[in-house]
Amino acid sequence: MNSAFLATLKQQQSSYTPIWLMRQAGRYLPEYRKTREKAGSFLALCKNPDLATEVTLQPLRRFALDASIMFSDILVVPEAMGLQLYFSEGEGPKFTNPIQSTLDIDVLKVINPEIDLAYVMQTIRNLKQELPKDTPLIGFSGSPWTLACYMIEGGSSKNYEKIKAWVYAHPEQLHVLLDKVSIAVADYLIAQIHAGVDTIMLFDSWGGVLSESAFGEFSHKYLAKVLTRIKLALPQHHIPSIVFTKGGGVWLQKLDQLECNGLGIDWTINIAKARKETNKALQGNLDPVILSVADRPAIKQQVTQILNEYRESNNSADGHIFNLGHGILPTAKPDNVAYLIDIVHELSKR
Amino acid sequence: MNSAFLATLKQQQSSYTPIWLMRQAGRYLPEYRKTREKAGSFLALCKNPDLATEVTLQPLRRFALDASIMFSDILVVPEAMGLQLYFSEGEGPKFTNPIQSTLDIDVLKVINPEIDLAYVMQTIRNLKQELPKDTPLIGFSGSPWTLACYMIEGGSSKNYEKIKAWVYAHPEQLHVLLDKVSIAVADYLIAQIHAGVDTIMLFDSWGGVLSESAFGEFSHKYLAKVLTRIKLALPQHHIPSIVFTKGGGVWLQKLDQLECNGLGIDWTINIAKARKETNKALQGNLDPVILSVADRPAIKQQVTQILNEYRESNNSADGHIFNLGHGILPTAKPDNVAYLIDIVHELSKR
Repeated sequence: MNSAFLATLKQQQSSYTPIWLMRQAGRYLPEYRKTREKAGSFLALCKNPDLATEVTLQPLRRFALDASIMFSDILVVPEAMGLQLYFSEGEGPKFTNPIQSTLDIDVLKVINPEIDLAYVMQTIRNLKQELPKDTPLIGFSGSPWTLACYMIEGGSSKNYEKIKAWVYAHPEQLHVLLDKVSIAVADYLIAQIHAGVDTIMLFDSWGGVLSESAFGEFSHKYLAKVLTRIKLALPQHHIPSIVFTKGGGVWLQKLDQLECNGLGIDWTINIAKARKETNKALQGNLDPVILSVADRPAIKQQVTQILNEYRESNNSADGHIFNLGHGILPTAKPDNVAYLIDIVHELSKR
Repeated sequence: MNSAFLATLKQQQSSYTPIWLMRQAGRYLPEYRKTREKAGSFLALCKNPDLATEVTLQPLRRFALDASIMFSDILVVPEAMGLQLYFSEGEGPKFTNPIQSTLDIDVLKVINPEIDLAYVMQTIRNLKQELPKDTPLIGFSGSPWTLACYMIEGGSSKNYEKIKAWVYAHPEQLHVLLDKVSIAVADYLIAQIHAGVDTIMLFDSWGGVLSESAFGEFSHKYLAKVLTRIKLALPQHHIPSIVFTKGGGVWLQKLDQLECNGLGIDWTINIAKARKETNKALQGNLDPVILSVADRPAIKQQVTQILNEYRESNNSADGHIFNLGHGILPTAKPDNVAYLIDIVHELSKR
């Protein structure tokens, strides 16, 4: 596959800086909102391979994106393990039966992704048929820590008091849960690789709520475990991987120890500083809000700054995948998205 | 004043590591809840010098704290400038007339803190009478950026889209606002110094939502401006200052340039790493949740780790003020608070 995204992730030379956007198939696109309405609900959309394929392709029809990412949600894994998932309007995802005891952990199902998450595998197989041949497909999962947060908190949280009660008062029981979730995550990603994804990404969306030592013990350790299990299961595979810990800018030296190819960074860390703390490919890091509120000159100025800071700190523009520092917002203007992608390509031409 | 807190902040030797807790006069204390009820509302409590004095003193009666902090709220400054403030139960502070245009900025009042915030000055004067003579009193203000966030967003915010629209589309108008707020903040802190506070602290609670360059332009610059204005107004004063940017762990080298004595750090950055990035006194950085969910052995273990990491990275335990990484939570257990304070003193004895 002739892909600037894959070349960059493998730290090979590229003739320009590739770009894709986290959550690029999303609510900011009217055609997405229409398909979601047709599906009936967000979860129904995730579980319908034809419609999930359709929304994955939608942003690629509009924009010159350098990668696609399968449309799904990180919470389908805990759901497959036995938790009841629903999406309440305005409040985000919730579990009706969050984990409250070790018994709840004991009864979690060991998943067979080919069966329990067959709809995801079907979406991937569809996409491999329908995507342009040089457009790589990114598969993904939530990190074990992030999934455990949702499984214990029962939804999004302000202070993470429930899971932190396990961190500080019952760590050994939390480790049992994280072990189980790690196996599910690894097996899920292995199945995605078998189904045909070209890259895997781990979203550690809530890793940043921990102290450094707790991050090491409860998130980083299980990111490593997932990556190792995949490597052992598929010793010959050459599927590159990306890890993104939101708020992880202070821990890049630690994240650099992971056996992955790229690290995602949010917009709070200067990319030149990030470059000094890790040798991995870097993915990021424009503030997503800019696509909702700024005009073209401001977007150009921000893009120029990120590209220049990266190039100067790296003595080359290679090894940088442009992205937002977090998922694109529903308020993003599609015209701004189109401009962003074009200006990244134009300004980064070698 | 014989104070381990003041000595440490001035980087002098101390026989133990001093400790106080952000929001130490707060809802976790039953006597606070009682006084607040008596006042009728949170805002009425702030505006009643006798009751504000009372709640400031409450945690000092229970615990061996090394400093007191005047009870107030950062939003009294925008209120004095003309915004209508109210506190809605469960949703936090709100302004009925947030800033939406340059006209709204034009009509903001230039405050005279001795008149417009006389109740704060009276609280400080009361406290200077009532506090034990070796207990320093911390005065404070929100940072200009953080106050501007509330003034434009109208309350707390998820993505800060309103103020970031100014950042990315109308920066020059935002600078006009930040200039006005900086003058108010500086004059407010100058009045607090005249009234008798022993230390001033700037809470940059929302600085961490910015990119590094935007942080420099819209928050750091105005922190510097406030500190400079105070210095020019009171060239002979020896009141030390602390700046706390929540989420600012990635910018410590930049924060180190400020003319302040100490920097607060949240719990996400390792204190040994922070020590390498700045020479200022460091204040922090236990995860506040631990006081709600952990038992004594876990608290002892976390405290030991922070104290050891600091001492080893600094070759001395001096220059460290123990605190939480953010305000104490309403769910904190008073017994845990008492234990924390005692164990910090015990473990840090030189």
